[in-house]
Amino acid sequence: MNSIRVFAPATVANVACGFDIFGFAVDSPGDEIVLRKRDKPGVEIIDIIGDEGRLPREAMRNTAGIAIQTFLQHIGSEQGIEVTLHKQMPLGSGLGSSAASAVAGVFAINELMGRPLKTMDLLPFAMEGERLACGSAHADNVAPSLLGGFVVIRSYNPLDVIRVNTPDGMHCTIVHPDIEVNTKDARFILKNEVSMKNTITQMGNVAGMIAGLMKPDYDLISRSMVDVIIEPVRSILIPEFNEVKQAALDSGALGCSISGSGPSMFALSRDAETAQRVGLAMQAGFLAVGITSELYVSEINQQGPKILSPVTATA
Amino acid sequence: MNSIRVFAPATVANVACGFDIFGFAVDSPGDEIVLRKRDKPGVEIIDIIGDEGRLPREAMRNTAGIAIQTFLQHIGSEQGIEVTLHKQMPLGSGLGSSAASAVAGVFAINELMGRPLKTMDLLPFAMEGERLACGSAHADNVAPSLLGGFVVIRSYNPLDVIRVNTPDGMHCTIVHPDIEVNTKDARFILKNEVSMKNTITQMGNVAGMIAGLMKPDYDLISRSMVDVIIEPVRSILIPEFNEVKQAALDSGALGCSISGSGPSMFALSRDAETAQRVGLAMQAGFLAVGITSELYVSEINQQGPKILSPVTATA
Repeated sequence: MNSIRVFAPATVANVACGFDIFGFAVDSPGDEIVLRKRDKPGVEIIDIIGDEGRLPREAMRNTAGIAIQTFLQHIGSEQGIEVTLHKQMPLGSGLGSSAASAVAGVFAINELMGRPLKTMDLLPFAMEGERLACGSAHADNVAPSLLGGFVVIRSYNPLDVIRVNTPDGMHCTIVHPDIEVNTKDARFILKNEVSMKNTITQMGNVAGMIAGLMKPDYDLISRSMVDVIIEPVRSILIPEFNEVKQAALDSGALGCSISGSGPSMFALSRDAETAQRVGLAMQAGFLAVGITSELYVSEINQQGPKILSPVTATA
Repeated sequence: MNSIRVFAPATVANVACGFDIFGFAVDSPGDEIVLRKRDKPGVEIIDIIGDEGRLPREAMRNTAGIAIQTFLQHIGSEQGIEVTLHKQMPLGSGLGSSAASAVAGVFAINELMGRPLKTMDLLPFAMEGERLACGSAHADNVAPSLLGGFVVIRSYNPLDVIRVNTPDGMHCTIVHPDIEVNTKDARFILKNEVSMKNTITQMGNVAGMIAGLMKPDYDLISRSMVDVIIEPVRSILIPEFNEVKQAALDSGALGCSISGSGPSMFALSRDAETAQRVGLAMQAGFLAVGITSELYVSEINQQGPKILSPVTATA
């Protein structure tokens, strides 16, 4: 195999009550990456399409480049690689854009090198990409993007990632308003202390969310999609947050909150039809104050990354 | 029916990571109550056996008396009731002694009055008993005692109690050292603020615990039985806490922590044999510093209260 094309899904982190511990993958949007072996050593980014020139082209300053490079170092390979990245989602949107690129990169290089590592063992390399993009090696986007489905990051030290089943018909709505929030800023405004009362409330919702997903029990999921710690702070960075959330709930969403650190908002619904209706209502909410937005409706992605092109077998 | 005898189970609240939101019932110990109808109105406590005279005999100052009284008021009955309470567990032990009495009382009176309410709807009356005993209407002992099994108190306002399945073979060890901790004191020493870091760690363990119980996955349960918020503070009230906990883990327990507000300690194990071995090791740990203790080993109680005596059908 000399080249490979891989898709990795966008992700919704936090999922209302699960700050830094919950995340799930969606079928759309996502990033595509193309890797090609070359004789000259080193990882080189040939092109990035769809970022309007905003992402660094230098491999060691790019999330996918870092992930590929640390993987190759780990397996002791000096294989040269040319990278073409197709960004198919907005940057700084709260949809795990950097994570999707890193996951696509490390999944692709593992396949290209004959799959020396298991998928789960690719996580640390993708997290190195996140460290570059976010300042810390968070896993709540890379883990669901890599593993698919709904995941819990139970612990970072040691890393303990748990996959939780989701109800079959459940759909996700994502609305990305055309405004920007910097992830580092969104983290900076959070307090370092939480009241015991809010901690207990949030733990109850975290427990309810997992039980609701696993039973499954849509009403319980709905009741548990409440965030008393992060959303009240971060939502002030998103114009019309309360109105858009209410529009989602009024349209039948189980719940609605900020995707990752925003500004994208997400909702969960019982079926595709509701999820679509919820999305249009959310878009209308933003448009009422002149904010345009992109809408994505999809099932929970269960697969993680996938190989897109047929493998070209050349010696 | 003129009289009834009911058993209600003891409970382990908090369950390591789930402060104020987790609780489960055990088959042993528990309290027994006998109710008898009488012509004279009012609730009267005829006798309390096994409390060494420490519990109030005045019905409206007794947790079972309060629960029965508020239930009768709710259904608009002036039925006179004589109560005999058989305390079969230590008071102030962290095993939900007051909750078991309240649950036994309200379950018994509901049966005696022809079951006007469903079991779940008895919870508020048992919680009134808790308000008397603990100063606030906590549900993390009364809910599992009433419903059986492992429960999550997702929310108090409105009350939202969720029952979660547990692995079939799982057994609980309880060791009650012969020392006393006042529930109000144990709550008073807790801080009002929790660091964001500890909140996130605890949420991860709460999610892991629910997923571990429901999958079921014993290793995940074990990894999730970690409390970084409450145990480090409350354990200082229990002599030899660290040594006893380590003895439990060394003997094969999945995890070990404080039962409720202590001083009882509990452990969970994969089977009865391990749970018994764990218990003896924990007792030896206390005995090393001269503290005697009671040992209880049982499955997770799945039934809640049960009627013990055959119902005497008299007109």
